[in-house]
Amino acid sequence: MDYRSVKIAATGTYIPPMVVTDRDLEERLQLPPGWIEKKTGVCKRHYALGETQSEMAAKAILNALRSVNLTMDDVDCLVGANGAMEQAIPSNAALTKEALGVKNAIPAFDINSTCLSFVVAMDIVSHMIAAGQYNRVVIFSSDIASNALNWDHKESCVLFGDAAAAVVVERETDANGAKILASHMATYIDGVHLAEVKGGGTKLHPREYREENRTDYLFHMEGEKLFRLSMQYIPALFNVLLDTAQCKIRDIDLVIPHQASLLGMRLIQRNLRVPDERFMVTIREYGNTIASSIPLALHEAISQSRVKRGDRLMLFGTSAGLSIGGMILVY
Amino acid sequence: MDYRSVKIAATGTYIPPMVVTDRDLEERLQLPPGWIEKKTGVCKRHYALGETQSEMAAKAILNALRSVNLTMDDVDCLVGANGAMEQAIPSNAALTKEALGVKNAIPAFDINSTCLSFVVAMDIVSHMIAAGQYNRVVIFSSDIASNALNWDHKESCVLFGDAAAAVVVERETDANGAKILASHMATYIDGVHLAEVKGGGTKLHPREYREENRTDYLFHMEGEKLFRLSMQYIPALFNVLLDTAQCKIRDIDLVIPHQASLLGMRLIQRNLRVPDERFMVTIREYGNTIASSIPLALHEAISQSRVKRGDRLMLFGTSAGLSIGGMILVY
Repeated sequence: MDYRSVKIAATGTYIPPMVVTDRDLEERLQLPPGWIEKKTGVCKRHYALGETQSEMAAKAILNALRSVNLTMDDVDCLVGANGAMEQAIPSNAALTKEALGVKNAIPAFDINSTCLSFVVAMDIVSHMIAAGQYNRVVIFSSDIASNALNWDHKESCVLFGDAAAAVVVERETDANGAKILASHMATYIDGVHLAEVKGGGTKLHPREYREENRTDYLFHMEGEKLFRLSMQYIPALFNVLLDTAQCKIRDIDLVIPHQASLLGMRLIQRNLRVPDERFMVTIREYGNTIASSIPLALHEAISQSRVKRGDRLMLFGTSAGLSIGGMILVY
Repeated sequence: MDYRSVKIAATGTYIPPMVVTDRDLEERLQLPPGWIEKKTGVCKRHYALGETQSEMAAKAILNALRSVNLTMDDVDCLVGANGAMEQAIPSNAALTKEALGVKNAIPAFDINSTCLSFVVAMDIVSHMIAAGQYNRVVIFSSDIASNALNWDHKESCVLFGDAAAAVVVERETDANGAKILASHMATYIDGVHLAEVKGGGTKLHPREYREENRTDYLFHMEGEKLFRLSMQYIPALFNVLLDTAQCKIRDIDLVIPHQASLLGMRLIQRNLRVPDERFMVTIREYGNTIASSIPLALHEAISQSRVKRGDRLMLFGTSAGLSIGGMILVY
C-alpha cells in the first residue's frame, strides 16, 4: 500500500472547566491520600457539567479551525470518532454539525472503535482524501466518561476524565511533506467482555434499568486482564507499523499512546526503549479521556513544541473489543 | 475521483422467524383492518425475539459467505454498518466477531450514519480495498427496531421491522468488471430532530428513565416533515450521482432505495420516471428495517435474478441527521 499524502493542518481541544482532583475523589471514595496517583498516575481530571458531547466537540473544532484561520465553510466532511454515543440516534457527527450551526450540505457520520476511533477515522479519512473524494476533513473525538462510571469499582472510576479534541486533515501537495506511512488495526474477541457497557442499546434497553442491574449500564473494565492480553498483541503491532513504514523505533520522534493507564504506558515505553522525551504522557492532567485521549495528547505535543513539521509520530492504543491499532505519520 | 474496482462478491440475509402481520398490529393498536397497508404499504414485518443484533448479523454473514464457498478465514476486515448500537460499548462489529467465533486478528469497527450506514460503509471500504489495505471485507447491517418503537405513535410504529443483511466486498481484477462509479452524501441539520432516539447515550443516561420521559428513549419520527425536507434535497443527489457516473437514469438497470415508506418511494419513482421493473420494493414483506433495508433489498434483487453481472445499480436513501446519500455501481 502506498503512502497517503495527507496533512494534519490543525488541532484543537476543549477541556470542560470543572476540575476533579485526586483529593476530591479520595474523599468521596474514602481512600487514603495518594492512593489514586500511586495506582493510576492520574493527578486530576475534568468532568463535563451540563455539557453534551456535541457541544464540547463544537468548541474543540472551532479552536482547531481558528488556529489556522479557517471556518467550517472550508471543510468538506465532518467525521465523529467517539467512544460512546450522545443519543442512540442520530450520529454524534450530525448532532455536532447542529451544535456548530453549519447549514451547508457537507456529510457528517461516525466511525466507532471505542478508544481507537480517532486512529481508525484518520486511517479511513486519509484514503478518502488521497482518492480525491474530500479535500479537507474535520475529525473530532468528544467523550463524557464521567456519566457512566461505576463508583463501586475504585480502580476504574478514578481513571477517567472528559475532554474533546479535533483535528483538521487535508490533502498534502508537497511530495516531501506530511504523509501517513503505515496504519494497522486488529481485534481479538478473547477480550470482548473485558471492557464494556452492556446496557443502553438494543440488547438491554433503558426501560430495563433497575437498581439491581444498574452496573450493567455503567462502564465495566477488568484492567489487569485487559492489560495482560494487550501486551500479548502490542509487540506485533509495533513490528507491523515499523516494517510498513520502513523505519526503526529510534526514527520515531514522538510516540503518542492512548492514555489508558500510566503503569501500562511505562511498561510499553520500557519495552520499546524509548526515552521520556520521545514518549507523550498527558494522563496526569486529564486521565483517560477515551477516544479523545490520542488527539488530545497530539494537540498537547504540538502546543508544547514537542512536535515540528517533518517529525515522525507513532500513534497507538488499545480499545474495547479488544482492539489494538496504530499509525506512523510524518507530521 | 477515479472509479473504484471493487465487487460485491456475495450477499446474505437473516430474517428473524417471528412474523407480525398488519392484522396482528391492527388488533393490538385498535386500528380498522387495512389501515396499515393503506397508510404505509407494509403488509408484514419480522420481529427479533430474544435474538441480538450480533447474533442476527452472524447468521446473515455466514449465509453470504457460504453462498460463494468462503469462510471468515478468507476475510480481511469486518465492518458494522448499523442504525443503532447493541451495547453502548464496544462496537457492534466486535460483538459480531464474537458471535461468529472468529479468533483471528482481523479488525472490526463500526460506521454509523443510521439508515445510510451501509452506503457510507460501502463507500469507505471501497477506498480501502482500492488502496490495497484490505482485499476482502464483510460489511453487515443488523437492526432491531422493534425494541424501541413508540406504540402511541401509530404512523411510525407499524412501519418498522427487524432484519440483518451482509455483503462480501472484494477487489475486482477485471478492469471491465464491477466498480463503483459514483458516491455522494450530504447532511442537513434542519432535519436533525425529525428522526431521533434522544435517550440511551451520554446525554440522557438510562438511569434517568422514568414513566414520564419514556418516549425520550423510543424512536421519534416526524414522517411527513422528514419526507418533505428530503424531497428538497433528493433531486440534487440524483444529479450529482448521475453526472459523476456519466450516465442517465435510463442507463440504471435497477434503482434500490432505502425502504423508508412506500408512498415516499413511489413519489420518488414517479419523479425519476423509472418503471416498476427497475425500482426495487421490499417494504411490503419486511417493513423499514433501518440500515439493513438497502443491503436486504439488494440481496432480494440478486436472489430474484433482477440483477445480473454488469448491471448498473443505484442505491440511495435518507437517514436520521438528516442525511441523504447514494451510490452508482456496476454489479
